Amino acid sequence: MWLRTSCDLAFDITVPTPFILMLRPRSGVQQWVAREEYRLVPSVAVFEFTDNYGNLCQRLIAPPGAFALHTAADVMTADYVDQAPGAPFVQIQDLPDAVLSYLLPSRYCESDRFNQMATSITAGQRLGYDQVASIEAWLRNTIRYEPGSSDIPVSAVEVNARQSGVCRDLSHLGIALCRSLSIPARLVVGYLYGLEPMDLHAWFEAYVAGRWYTFDATQAELRGGYVAIGYGRDAADVAVYNQFGPAVYTTAQEVRVQCIEEGAA
Amino acid sequence: MWLRTSCDLAFDITVPTPFILMLRPRSGVQQWVAREEYRLVPSVAVFEFTDNYGNLCQRLIAPPGAFALHTAADVMTADYVDQAPGAPFVQIQDLPDAVLSYLLPSRYCESDRFNQMATSITAGQRLGYDQVASIEAWLRNTIRYEPGSSDIPVSAVEVNARQSGVCRDLSHLGIALCRSLSIPARLVVGYLYGLEPMDLHAWFEAYVAGRWYTFDATQAELRGGYVAIGYGRDAADVAVYNQFGPAVYTTAQEVRVQCIEEGAA
Amino acid sequence: MWLRTSCDLAFDITVPTPFILMLRPRSGVQQWVAREEYRLVPSVAVFEFTDNYGNLCQRLIAPPGAFALHTAADVMTADYVDQAPGAPFVQIQDLPDAVLSYLLPSRYCESDRFNQMATSITAGQRLGYDQVASIEAWLRNTIRYEPGSSDIPVSAVEVNARQSGVCRDLSHLGIALCRSLSIPARLVVGYLYGLEPMDLHAWFEAYVAGRWYTFDATQAELRGGYVAIGYGRDAADVAVYNQFGPAVYTTAQEVRVQCIEEGAA
Amino acid sequence: MWLRTSCDLAFDITVPTPFILMLRPRSGVQQWVAREEYRLVPSVAVFEFTDNYGNLCQRLIAPPGAFALHTAADVMTADYVDQAPGAPFVQIQDLPDAVLSYLLPSRYCESDRFNQMATSITAGQRLGYDQVASIEAWLRNTIRYEPGSSDIPVSAVEVNARQSGVCRDLSHLGIALCRSLSIPARLVVGYLYGLEPMDLHAWFEAYVAGRWYTFDATQAELRGGYVAIGYGRDAADVAVYNQFGPAVYTTAQEVRVQCIEEGAA
Repeated sequence: MWLRTSCDLAFDITVPTPFILMLRPRSGVQQWVAREEYRLVPSVAVFEFTDNYGNLCQRLIAPPGAFALHTAADVMTADYVDQAPGAPFVQIQDLPDAVLSYLLPSRYCESDRFNQMATSITAGQRLGYDQVASIEAWLRNTIRYEPGSSDIPVSAVEVNARQSGVCRDLSHLGIALCRSLSIPARLVVGYLYGLEPMDLHAWFEAYVAGRWYTFDATQAELRGGYVAIGYGRDAADVAVYNQFGPAVYTTAQEVRVQCIEEGAA
Repeated sequence: MWLRTSCDLAFDITVPTPFILMLRPRSGVQQWVAREEYRLVPSVAVFEFTDNYGNLCQRLIAPPGAFALHTAADVMTADYVDQAPGAPFVQIQDLPDAVLSYLLPSRYCESDRFNQMATSITAGQRLGYDQVASIEAWLRNTIRYEPGSSDIPVSAVEVNARQSGVCRDLSHLGIALCRSLSIPARLVVGYLYGLEPMDLHAWFEAYVAGRWYTFDATQAELRGGYVAIGYGRDAADVAVYNQFGPAVYTTAQEVRVQCIEEGAA
Repeated sequence: MWLRTSCDLAFDITVPTPFILMLRPRSGVQQWVAREEYRLVPSVAVFEFTDNYGNLCQRLIAPPGAFALHTAADVMTADYVDQAPGAPFVQIQDLPDAVLSYLLPSRYCESDRFNQMATSITAGQRLGYDQVASIEAWLRNTIRYEPGSSDIPVSAVEVNARQSGVCRDLSHLGIALCRSLSIPARLVVGYLYGLEPMDLHAWFEAYVAGRWYTFDATQAELRGGYVAIGYGRDAADVAVYNQFGPAVYTTAQEVRVQCIEEGAA
Repeated sequence: MWLRTSCDLAFDITVPTPFILMLRPRSGVQQWVAREEYRLVPSVAVFEFTDNYGNLCQRLIAPPGAFALHTAADVMTADYVDQAPGAPFVQIQDLPDAVLSYLLPSRYCESDRFNQMATSITAGQRLGYDQVASIEAWLRNTIRYEPGSSDIPVSAVEVNARQSGVCRDLSHLGIALCRSLSIPARLVVGYLYGLEPMDLHAWFEAYVAGRWYTFDATQAELRGGYVAIGYGRDAADVAVYNQFGPAVYTTAQEVRVQCIEEGAA
C-alpha cells in the first residue's frame, strides 16, 4: 500500500539549542520512499550524517524563538507483515557479524536480567519465531498498553515492575526477553497506518531464519502499514530528536498517516 | 539559493535488466534537500544501500518494455562556491584516513603517469589551492570543452592525447594532475544551475587546507548553483546508472534545473 | 615504554559453546603493537571481524573439554598519560559525527539520570577537562575501589547506591556523569603496568578539546603504562569474552604485564 | 598447514617520507594469525587504520637515513584451495551490496574494454566458476609469466598487448575479464608457500555461488599455502607500500615462507 506520512513538530526555544534529529525515512528492503519533504522554519544550516545503524540523522542548532519542523513522505510499504511460524532460531555462529550487537544488553533493554523469565514465557515453543511470537502474546496479555507518550523513558526492568507502558516500553521488554534467549532484537521507530490515537510509533524486530521479522504487542494482531524511520538497539539510539542543553519541549506535535494512490500529487 | 532539479530517464528494455542507480541527492555539508521525488514507471521493487563513498544507490530489475525514472528535488545550495587562494597543501601525514583513497590512481585518472606534467603546469605556485587553481586554468585554456556526452568514457591519458572532452573528461584530467602532486581529488556528478546546454554535469573537488574545494574547468569562472548527486574516485564509482547484461540505451533523457523560492509547492 | 602483556584464560566446557572474544590489542593513535600472539588449545576455527567501535573480535565455538586461550603482545605505549587542565568543552555542533554516540545513555551508564549530581560535583569548574578531572577526583574520594572482579556487572545507578565497585564500576559512573554534562565518554578495557593486584583493567576516556583523554579513578594519580584492548560505550560493548548458551566459568585466568626493552625476543 | 612468513624491507631515505604500509595479515575466514611481529628500525610513531576494503594500513614518516621494516607471522591456512567446478554465476540482483564495487572497472583492470574477448575465451562454459577457470587456463597458456617485479605497474590492456607479465599483471587481466562478464573479482596480495623464486605474490579471487574462490594463473595448478595480506580492486588499492614525495627505492627486500609445526616458538 502507498501511505502519505507527516510529522510536524514545533518548539519554543530560549537559547541556541543543538539538535540531532532522525525524521527521514530511508528506502530499504521493506519500504520505498517515492517522495519526501523536510522543511525547517526558520531555515537553518543542517548537516546530515549516517549513524552506526544506517539511520540518516540531521544536526542543527535551533535559534531562539519559535522553531518548527515539517516532514512528510509518500512511501510504498507492505499490505501485510510477513509472519513465519516455525521459522528456526539462528545459531550464534551463523549470525552475520552486523547482527551480533543486537544480542547485547542496552540502556533500556537489560537482557542480562531476564533469562529465567524468558525461558518460562517461551516454555514448550520451538526455538526461533515461535518463541518471539509467544513473547509478543505474553506482552499483549500481561503488560497494559497505554497509548500516548511518557515523559521519561523507562527500562525493561522498570516496565516489568509497572506492568504497563507506552509502545516503546512494551517493545523494550520484548527486546530484552528475546536477547536473553540469544535472539537478536532491535527497536524500530516510525509510523503505523490506522494507529489509534495517531502518533509516532515504536515496535520491535527479531532476527530468525536469516532475516528480521516485525512484532508489535500494542496491536490486536499483526497487519501491514508500517513505515520505519529509524532502527537501533533501543530508544537511546533511535530518538526522533535528541536535544542538548536546557530542556526544550514541543509546543505542538501532529502526526498523520493516510492511504494514497500511487503517484498522487 | 533554492533550486528545483529534475532528471527524467526513459529506457526501452528487452530482457529483465539489473540496474544500479545513483540519482538521489543527499543532504550534506554543502546542500540541504528539502523535498525529493523518485518514481519508477512501472513501479518495481527497489533496494537502497549506501556505497563506500556515502552515496545512496538503488538496485532494481527493469522489466521488459518501456521503463521510466522520474526524479526531482528542491535543494538549498550556496550562491557562491567557496574559493581560497593561498590555502595550504595538507601534508600526507595530516590527511584524515578517509581522504587517503583519493590520492590513489583510479580507472579514469592514471595519476601515476602525470607527475612531470603536473609539476610543469603548477610551476611557481604556492603548494595547495593555488596549484589546483592553476591546473583548472590550464584545463580551461588547453583542453577544448565539448558539451554533451560521449558514448565511451575515456581516461585522463586519452583526454590529454585528444586535447578535448566532455565535462567528465576535463574533471578526470584535473583529478589525475592533482593526485600526482599528492593532493586528494575526487569526481562529483550532479546538476549545475544555468549550465548550457542543460544536462547532468560533472566537476571535481580537491582537498586543501582541511576541506574539499570545488573546481570546474568547463565554466568561465566559478559560481554557485551546484547540486551534488554522487562522489567517487572517478566516473567508474559515480555512474548515474550502471546497467548489467545486454546494453540498454536511453530513449529519452531530460534534465532541468530552475531557481525557486524557498518553500514553493 | 615497551610492555609485554599476556592474558591466559582456561575454561571447562560441557557443550559446544559459541564465544565472541576481544583480546587482540590494535595499533592506533596511542599504542603500537610490535609483536602479538593468539593461541587456542585445542586449535579451532576462528573468524575475526571488526565491530562498530573498531575493535577486532574473534568468533569461535569452544569444543567440550578443557579449552584455553593464550594471548600476548609487545606494545609501545606512552610513559605518561596526557593531561590538559583547562582544555575546553567541545560544543555539540562541533563534535565529529563518530563521537556523537558516546553522548547517549547506555546499558551500564544511565546518563539520563545524573544531570543534577554531575552539575553539583563539577560546580565552579571550567567547562571541559576540568569538569572531568573533578568527576575523577570525586570518584576517587567517594566510591570505594575494590580490586578484583564482580560476577554480575552493575550499572552507574547501582554503583552510586553501593558507593563501591570494581574498576569497571567506577568507570561506568564516571562515564554517566560526563555524558550527563554533554561530554562524550567511553569505556576502555585493557592492561595497566603496575596494577595491584594484576588483572585486566578498565578505565574511561572523555572527549574534550578535540581528542580523547584518559581518566582512571582507581589510581592515586594518572601515570603511563596503559595498553588498550577494546573501546565501547560501556562494558556491554567491550567484553573480553561474551559466551552464549549455558554459563561457562574460567577455571584459570592469569594476566601479566612486564616492562621490556624494545626488540627483546 | 602452519606457515611462518616474513618480509624484511630496507630503504635509504633522504628526506622525511610519508609511507602507507599494508604488511599486517589479518585473521579472517580463510586464515588465522597466531603470532605476528612488526618492527621498525629506527622506531617511529605509527598510526594504524582500516581502509574501505578491511585492510589494516599503517601510516608513518620515515626519517632520513637507513630505514628498515621487519614483519613476520605464524599463520594457519588451508592445505588445499577450495575448487568448485560447476558452481553457478550469481545474478547481479542477488549479490551482497558490499560485493558490487568489485564489478566496476578500476585503474589496472579496464573491464569495460574486455567483454568481447572474455565472451570468446569462455565460450561453451557454464556460467560461473567454469568461466573463471577457463579464464585462468587461458591466462596460463597465453600470457607468459615472468617472475620478479616490474618497476611500473601496467594495466590489463597493456598486459594483453605485451602477452607477458608478473603475477600482478596476470591477475589484473584475469580480473578485467571476469568483471566484463559481470563476475565480481578482486586482487589479493600476500605470500605463497613454495613460490619459485620466493617473493611477495599476487593472485585473484572471483565471487561465484555466494563466496570468493581463489585463482592463480602463475601456478601449474591450484594448491594450498596462500597467506593473504590485503584485498582490493587492483594493485592501486593493495600496495604493500605507498610512498609520497621524492621516489624512494628498496635497498633490500627479503621474503620467506616456511612450513612450521603449530605452536613452534
